Amino acid sequence: MKAQDVIILGAGIIGMSSAYYLQKNNPGKKILVVDREPGAGQGNTAKAAAMFRNTFSSRTSQVLSDTSINFYSHLQNEVNYDIHLKKTGYLWLLGRRQFREYSSIIRRMMEREIEIRILKKDELNKIPKLNLELNKNHEETKYLGLENIHKGLLGSKCGELDQSELVRFYREEFEKLGGETLFNTKIHRLIITPKNEFGGPPFVWQNPKITGVTTNNGEIYGNRIVLATGAYTHELLDPIGIDNHSKPKKRQLFQLECSDLEELLFVKNFNEHGILPFTILPKSEVYIKPDETTKRFWTGCADDLGRPFSLDVTPEKSFYEFNIRPIITKYFPQFENARIANKLAGLYACNTIDGNPYVFEEYGLIVISGCSGSGIMKADAIGRIVDALYRKKEEAELYGSVMFRVSDISTEKRNVENEEFVI
Amino acid sequence: MKAQDVIILGAGIIGMSSAYYLQKNNPGKKILVVDREPGAGQGNTAKAAAMFRNTFSSRTSQVLSDTSINFYSHLQNEVNYDIHLKKTGYLWLLGRRQFREYSSIIRRMMEREIEIRILKKDELNKIPKLNLELNKNHEETKYLGLENIHKGLLGSKCGELDQSELVRFYREEFEKLGGETLFNTKIHRLIITPKNEFGGPPFVWQNPKITGVTTNNGEIYGNRIVLATGAYTHELLDPIGIDNHSKPKKRQLFQLECSDLEELLFVKNFNEHGILPFTILPKSEVYIKPDETTKRFWTGCADDLGRPFSLDVTPEKSFYEFNIRPIITKYFPQFENARIANKLAGLYACNTIDGNPYVFEEYGLIVISGCSGSGIMKADAIGRIVDALYRKKEEAELYGSVMFRVSDISTEKRNVENEEFVI
Repeated sequence: MKAQDVIILGAGIIGMSSAYYLQKNNPGKKILVVDREPGAGQGNTAKAAAMFRNTFSSRTSQVLSDTSINFYSHLQNEVNYDIHLKKTGYLWLLGRRQFREYSSIIRRMMEREIEIRILKKDELNKIPKLNLELNKNHEETKYLGLENIHKGLLGSKCGELDQSELVRFYREEFEKLGGETLFNTKIHRLIITPKNEFGGPPFVWQNPKITGVTTNNGEIYGNRIVLATGAYTHELLDPIGIDNHSKPKKRQLFQLECSDLEELLFVKNFNEHGILPFTILPKSEVYIKPDETTKRFWTGCADDLGRPFSLDVTPEKSFYEFNIRPIITKYFPQFENARIANKLAGLYACNTIDGNPYVFEEYGLIVISGCSGSGIMKADAIGRIVDALYRKKEEAELYGSVMFRVSDISTEKRNVENEEFVI
Repeated sequence: MKAQDVIILGAGIIGMSSAYYLQKNNPGKKILVVDREPGAGQGNTAKAAAMFRNTFSSRTSQVLSDTSINFYSHLQNEVNYDIHLKKTGYLWLLGRRQFREYSSIIRRMMEREIEIRILKKDELNKIPKLNLELNKNHEETKYLGLENIHKGLLGSKCGELDQSELVRFYREEFEKLGGETLFNTKIHRLIITPKNEFGGPPFVWQNPKITGVTTNNGEIYGNRIVLATGAYTHELLDPIGIDNHSKPKKRQLFQLECSDLEELLFVKNFNEHGILPFTILPKSEVYIKPDETTKRFWTGCADDLGRPFSLDVTPEKSFYEFNIRPIITKYFPQFENARIANKLAGLYACNTIDGNPYVFEEYGLIVISGCSGSGIMKADAIGRIVDALYRKKEEAELYGSVMFRVSDISTEKRNVENEEFVI
């Protein structure tokens, strides 16, 4: 195979967005996307809840998501490329203590004109059967440590899209421009080549750089390599001693079915679609996500302490039963009889120190890391930043002519605020 | 065993300094240090070059090292506790390009009154046989990419100490205050206990915290746990899903013997001890460290790309032969006939994003991370910061009444400059 100008490893949403902007802004360059799956977006991208929000406390996460959402809306409404985007909203149900803790963040978001609104109890009461007041004498409520719901916080420039359609868009456009893909190709390791050849392993004085990959389909060489392998990134980087500042953790999604749920699904008042927003409960970040098509709900929650960093992706029914169910049914009794209709587990590439993604270059390798949890909602911006870094531009032009300093999310000259509003 | 107030995991220099300040400032508290080695400071602490410097570009690294050096000097000169501290200096030999690259950092260090001085060629010429000008026509010099030496940079508040004596000081003082140690005890895993007991694994709603460790000598419980396990930290944290923001990498030291070396060892002009400073060459951070007692030199170098993250600690003779030797002998021909008299390999806990250490608390666990490379030279300050964090103080009082904001080296409210002056 002839040497590529750019090899992009990983055909998830981040890899495909990067591929598109690289090919678009570097016409004539030979760009190849490699992935072990048979198609694009079939790894952890496919296992994401595919929600989007622009409600972040840090400017960086806010601008990355906001401009990406604007681009996705443009696709949906102006280009008429149907990615099933619906601004159904995010609704945080907050306890009194929580509301107090978040108050300065909420104020800051309002000052920055992020589209959020505080909801009082009378508005929340329109949600069928929602228990704003829990029975404090109930033994289970006590040991679960559940709070009454004090306020709601509604983000209206938030919602859902179909990530497979969004990936398809980037792939089609990339291929129209001459970009190539190589699927069913497992990457084994990165190839390091000394600048000044001498034979043997690269020595410290050889100024080595990363020039290719070995795969089950042979070696592939390229001038620059882009690593968009998400939660698997450390598998390629640990053996050559580069830190990607992120570790993989299982995150599970459970689809719940119950005859009582339809009423909860179709709630007016919160958005033009007449669907309940993506709703986050006041405990352990348990959320419910309406699925209009199946008339079911997806649910999940954060499990930080005790969940190992690993590549295990086995969903556990017991995780729902013991962690999510006790909480969800206290606030929404209609889930009492719900059964798990579907379950899936994907990998988060989590734990960046400041909650923002990384895009940095070392030894000819551009690494994208720590996007999980908000990868889809920031993918358009990330792709443009990767292209800007490739072209050695100081600033990337995000959608809507918003300029973004590329080094702000690098490692060496990182300049971000801590993201404090994690759902 | 009765539950401890504090368990410190790891009796290296960082663990013992922390133990001392915790016991000193929390009299009456039951504090236990646990380590798998038969004594303190016998892990990677023992494998360090044990050099110290206060020449850093970031204020954080500068103040941590500077105050620690002041304390060590106080120990040596006023307390008369012999830790074999000698301010023999650090001498960077810089090529023209390097000197240009570092110029703004050097200027900043001078503005901050860090004790450095630029040396011209006539001063460097006093070093026996040092080649300031390399033979550019020499094939090997070319492919090694070696530069002529343009300037020297001498840090005078830099030098060496005996880490085993420093560890002994902290341990003796800790034990005098009633602190206890438990050696030959391998830690298997951290114990997570729910705040509200319910049986079974900790569930997300239980507000679990870390309350103990299982070891080959049984379970040990404590109110707070301090993790000072250096390069092994991820082995305890990965299984419970907490990121320590650092990965382990092998670093090697080679002791070189040669009859010609004595003249190089005892050089006047640079310090009151009449010994060559710790000297860093203009390529790949190759250094030589004089060993007055054995009349030998230690040498090592950074090998970033290609050196995997792993716990391997096998020293490789070939690493010296192919990586260090070609460079060292071009500048110092007297190493031409040197043979390896001793070699050792330790583990670096490297790659914090900004080059500064981490001290943070999660779920009752205080984690110290990413100290390697400058752990010994910052240990006194780190120990005081750990104690301040334990006592929930906003500021730690470092030696010489220097106040330091504890959260500055945390994860959540991190506030550090990137460290750009890595030797």
